[in-house]
Amino acid sequence: MAVTLTDVEGAASRLRGQIVETPCVRSETLSRVTDTDLFLKFENLQFTSSFKERGALNCLLQLTPDETSHGVIAMSAGNHAQALAYHGSRLGIPTTIVMPRSTPNAKVEQTRVFGADVLLHGNQFDATRAFTECLAEERGLTLVHPFDDPRVIAGQGTVGLEIVDQVPDLDVAILPVGGGGLMSGAAVAIKGRLPSVEVVGVQAERYATAVNAYYDRPTVEAATGTVAEGIAVKSPGTLTLPLMMTHVDRMLTVSEERIEQAVFDLLEIEKTVVEGAGAAAFAALRGHAELFRGRRVVLVLSGGNIDMMILSSILQRGLVRTHRLIRLGVELPDMPGALAALTQVLGELDSNIMDISHQRTFGGSSVRTTLVDLVLQMRGEEQVERVVEGLNHRGYEVRLYQ
Amino acid sequence: MAVTLTDVEGAASRLRGQIVETPCVRSETLSRVTDTDLFLKFENLQFTSSFKERGALNCLLQLTPDETSHGVIAMSAGNHAQALAYHGSRLGIPTTIVMPRSTPNAKVEQTRVFGADVLLHGNQFDATRAFTECLAEERGLTLVHPFDDPRVIAGQGTVGLEIVDQVPDLDVAILPVGGGGLMSGAAVAIKGRLPSVEVVGVQAERYATAVNAYYDRPTVEAATGTVAEGIAVKSPGTLTLPLMMTHVDRMLTVSEERIEQAVFDLLEIEKTVVEGAGAAAFAALRGHAELFRGRRVVLVLSGGNIDMMILSSILQRGLVRTHRLIRLGVELPDMPGALAALTQVLGELDSNIMDISHQRTFGGSSVRTTLVDLVLQMRGEEQVERVVEGLNHRGYEVRLYQ
Repeated sequence: MAVTLTDVEGAASRLRGQIVETPCVRSETLSRVTDTDLFLKFENLQFTSSFKERGALNCLLQLTPDETSHGVIAMSAGNHAQALAYHGSRLGIPTTIVMPRSTPNAKVEQTRVFGADVLLHGNQFDATRAFTECLAEERGLTLVHPFDDPRVIAGQGTVGLEIVDQVPDLDVAILPVGGGGLMSGAAVAIKGRLPSVEVVGVQAERYATAVNAYYDRPTVEAATGTVAEGIAVKSPGTLTLPLMMTHVDRMLTVSEERIEQAVFDLLEIEKTVVEGAGAAAFAALRGHAELFRGRRVVLVLSGGNIDMMILSSILQRGLVRTHRLIRLGVELPDMPGALAALTQVLGELDSNIMDISHQRTFGGSSVRTTLVDLVLQMRGEEQVERVVEGLNHRGYEVRLYQ
Repeated sequence: MAVTLTDVEGAASRLRGQIVETPCVRSETLSRVTDTDLFLKFENLQFTSSFKERGALNCLLQLTPDETSHGVIAMSAGNHAQALAYHGSRLGIPTTIVMPRSTPNAKVEQTRVFGADVLLHGNQFDATRAFTECLAEERGLTLVHPFDDPRVIAGQGTVGLEIVDQVPDLDVAILPVGGGGLMSGAAVAIKGRLPSVEVVGVQAERYATAVNAYYDRPTVEAATGTVAEGIAVKSPGTLTLPLMMTHVDRMLTVSEERIEQAVFDLLEIEKTVVEGAGAAAFAALRGHAELFRGRRVVLVLSGGNIDMMILSSILQRGLVRTHRLIRLGVELPDMPGALAALTQVLGELDSNIMDISHQRTFGGSSVRTTLVDLVLQMRGEEQVERVVEGLNHRGYEVRLYQ
């Protein structure tokens, strides 16, 4: 059942015109920042905002007439669900999606809106899976696995074909790895066409299940979640792992902090929204810069389905990290007018107050002083220095929290 | 000096290969939401993230050898500055940009990094302009106006040519209007090719200077700023206004709230970052839905240069508006354990606490009660109801702040 270049090429001609051939664009700014010649493959611009449509559709287009009329089923609360729901309903194939009970309502709605029948069942992965398999059996539905299916792998691999067509003289391709469907398919395609390209897979440190399997290291169960939940998979597939062992040159891990920064940078510099998994390849390029310096690199931005609440936190934390939001503690004499004087000085220093709190009982160095805690908007490092110096110069005791 | 279709076509062949021919993509989700057949023209994907490169480059490419060796100058703290700096330095033409003293450092840096010589002068528009003109004269530099120049207008107009090629059977084109360079150039191009297309311009209510000039209404000086600062221009150009009078069918205004919502929706649904001006056309479509229902519409997303601090606020406010962040006041008996009991109940109702404050002195209905103020993350409307009902059911007095 090994997937070959021919399978991926077959998938490409099957998908033509039904999948967005996403742009693969050179980023001048990020090339300069990373000291590489950097191209970005925007799979977050697929209609359901991820590459998953390729595998799902390649599977749907190979069903027998009988399978088509009975319909398909999948267990997924993520991008695979939306991809299957969208193309299933577009092709008139009944689609059932099973999600765990705890799935956020927004995700249920996003999948329903594409025309799937969404069932909520089970609180744990195994229970939900058992129910899905049972229902498939009972109703004669074809189960579409999110990654461990040769048709799905070949479909995802079409990303690799597009990359080698879109980027001449490519040196390195970096892709995120969850179950390994995208990684193995794309590696087959890229190595099949251009064996000299170095193909690199990336996982979150906290969920390095495929990396560990690849290097034959034991995996310790992750204690906490990752912002890249799209690639947090319990273990790689029985089809995908051998393909990765054969065709992938290197597997890397990245920290949560790097992933968050990558989401922020892609938003600010490239004006594009990526989810955690979609930012993992860029995070790896930043975190392992020495491996890639001076080379022509393509990164796959695999998806853009990020919760707006999480994106909002990432933005706030990014502003703090880049010193565009700072927190200051300032000691004031405890007397009327002291706060007015301080805010007047801050106004003169051209710094905007976002948040202020006044601690009377705690934190002051004497009974006659009080501590004011301020969150200020800054334009960058130089302004931070100017404000702290300006306050010191006027006799204020300032603490800058980092 | 009226700009014609031939001028725009000339610009198009001049610019070919040096400007991104940006994608113009149908949005299925936003078509459904607006009950139109909707296409988006992604000018925020130009290298410096706005359409301004077209006009700036069309001007640079028509300089005489003498003008080229002396160099160019412009007054701008925004997208025009970056566009001119980037292409000037790419073509080896010395570029000087003058900005007001109050310009945020980030904008200065963004322009310097593209290779321009940036000078800060004056605190008011008129002083900065006078200095710029003086310097141009003194050093023999060619002044490149951000909109009121036939070469700039023709360059911006190439957006219109791309649109008519990219969207078959177009009914309506909606574009943002600042000084009117983009609007007048694109209107000349679109009407020249397809006279039946309705061409619509949009401004922010607070800065409706071109709309008022178009309808011959007086303009009251705006008291406050707009989130669409890219189209907040004191008055349209002497070249652009007559072109708009001739070729634009309708001018609309949009509220600040609509613009903010449009930035949020384009981020969440289309995964793309637009600045306020770049969202204005979508805001107009939402705010004047009855004009466009059932028609094939293209919107120009003119730029993506939005401050991350402002984007962060828009995200937060969008979460509040869509009830994904709510603020509740809950009255508690003033005794040990009361807060523990409340937070326990909130946990059971599966709602995440973002912020909490405990008001002992103010707001409780009696001396024995205290008011807790909570900011909670919600998954949407149904969860809000469930949480409020769940708290009421357990005997808590709840106030939901809208």
